[in-house]
Amino acid sequence: MVNENEWFMEPMESKGTLFGLKLGERLHAEQSDFQYLEIYQTETFGRLMVIDGCVMLTDRDNFLYHEMMVHPALCLHPDPQRVLIIGGGDCGTLREVLRHDSVQTAVQVDIDERVTRLAEKYFPSLCERNDDPRAQLLFDDGIAYVRNAPDASFDLIIVDSTDPVGPAEGLFNKAFYAQCQRALAPDGMLVQQTESPLLHLDLIREVHSSMRGEGFARTQLVSFPQPVYPSGWWSATLAFKAPDEARIESARVEQIATGSQYFNGAILQGALALPNFVAQALAAR
Amino acid sequence: MVNENEWFMEPMESKGTLFGLKLGERLHAEQSDFQYLEIYQTETFGRLMVIDGCVMLTDRDNFLYHEMMVHPALCLHPDPQRVLIIGGGDCGTLREVLRHDSVQTAVQVDIDERVTRLAEKYFPSLCERNDDPRAQLLFDDGIAYVRNAPDASFDLIIVDSTDPVGPAEGLFNKAFYAQCQRALAPDGMLVQQTESPLLHLDLIREVHSSMRGEGFARTQLVSFPQPVYPSGWWSATLAFKAPDEARIESARVEQIATGSQYFNGAILQGALALPNFVAQALAAR
Repeated sequence: MVNENEWFMEPMESKGTLFGLKLGERLHAEQSDFQYLEIYQTETFGRLMVIDGCVMLTDRDNFLYHEMMVHPALCLHPDPQRVLIIGGGDCGTLREVLRHDSVQTAVQVDIDERVTRLAEKYFPSLCERNDDPRAQLLFDDGIAYVRNAPDASFDLIIVDSTDPVGPAEGLFNKAFYAQCQRALAPDGMLVQQTESPLLHLDLIREVHSSMRGEGFARTQLVSFPQPVYPSGWWSATLAFKAPDEARIESARVEQIATGSQYFNGAILQGALALPNFVAQALAAR
Repeated sequence: MVNENEWFMEPMESKGTLFGLKLGERLHAEQSDFQYLEIYQTETFGRLMVIDGCVMLTDRDNFLYHEMMVHPALCLHPDPQRVLIIGGGDCGTLREVLRHDSVQTAVQVDIDERVTRLAEKYFPSLCERNDDPRAQLLFDDGIAYVRNAPDASFDLIIVDSTDPVGPAEGLFNKAFYAQCQRALAPDGMLVQQTESPLLHLDLIREVHSSMRGEGFARTQLVSFPQPVYPSGWWSATLAFKAPDEARIESARVEQIATGSQYFNGAILQGALALPNFVAQALAAR
């Protein structure tokens, strides 16, 4: 919602918090087949993409989310070659995935082609690797795509979705996790954005429990700042198919840290640290 | 500001961001000799204290700020016995300081007695150690207090102030840092809240540079989530009088982690990690 003083404001009624950004002009608005999409110029965060009234990303701080959705997982997998991204239509996650030399194919399946077309126009830096020959952009139902994928056909699946309502609701349930588990190789990993450690601890607990219930041997929370999302504090959940403790690939961390704005080895270690109240919630499941 | 839909909203015009909390009733409002003080009941964050229109703390998430303003410093000092808190009138920092057995005296100097009286009434859990015989609560000018303190009379000074405008402005300058340096013992440390790593990087760089310029041998940024402050991401700066790398006192970390909601050894290591863009900004000073 936009008020008379030209603030974009996203009230999250269910959690009782609100976030706003001072606006310049609205650059675009459309109802796609799936969602209401808006692009704004902000005063201090560059351009802003909004879907169904929720902030998706800004120029200024999307590096935090995109780096942390991708590099922890790709630096904990022994040899990630075949990557599947579900959602991620703005292409920022794809761009970070393709920075890894080990990756041979990166398939992105977003249901809404318009998100990608708007990203190409308004956030061109996020799309600068879309022409990489390893990249394949599909506009289709991600749930069906995983269901139809052959067994063990991916090393890593990254679920870079909107909140677990609307189009993304089916990405937060056991049937989907079971299909991901099946479509992953024996040392495969699933990564899912799992909202705020402070505001959505119940969801996080449920996701971890469901992933383990569907055959993932271990789960791990990754947390990081994300100022434009509710509470400014966000998380991803990693689920490992193999039971052994994952080893951090230090050489890969060093290589990726060069050229990252946030990510480095110490930041990775910190992101894997569990606050006491989170550890207690996850242990109680 | 409070709008017609009963949101408390704090617009930060200079940074172009806005944060809001859904309100219940306003419990108190007064103009003290120094500031305009308000207490609200919120829907989801417990009680809220507001000073001059800015969120100071809520029941729900103040543990992040208070634990991280105190425990990193007290776990990096070899033997913190004499602690001075400048500001900190809500007494949450004092409470955390007094959890450390090494502490023999903790003097809190806040200019506004009304903040403490309101904390006692509306945030009693923050004040539960105010009667500790080691605690001394003074209501006075913190800058003058430090100027009048004998040389080397404190092991640790914690500056737990409001933003660097109004009453707190004089706490963010070289003259104050020079007096802190003088009033600290040779292995003494200064801790100051230094705003958001994303929004206030120029301030952080200036603080680090000024502290070093006034004789502190080393500075270190500590960062942590703080959802109710602008960007949801906050920092403290540690300044060390001694040139040697500080050692983490692991036994003390373990002891304090028990009973903390956020703080533990892995969280401490993570809080000391510098994001690349912060490291670059601080290296360029």
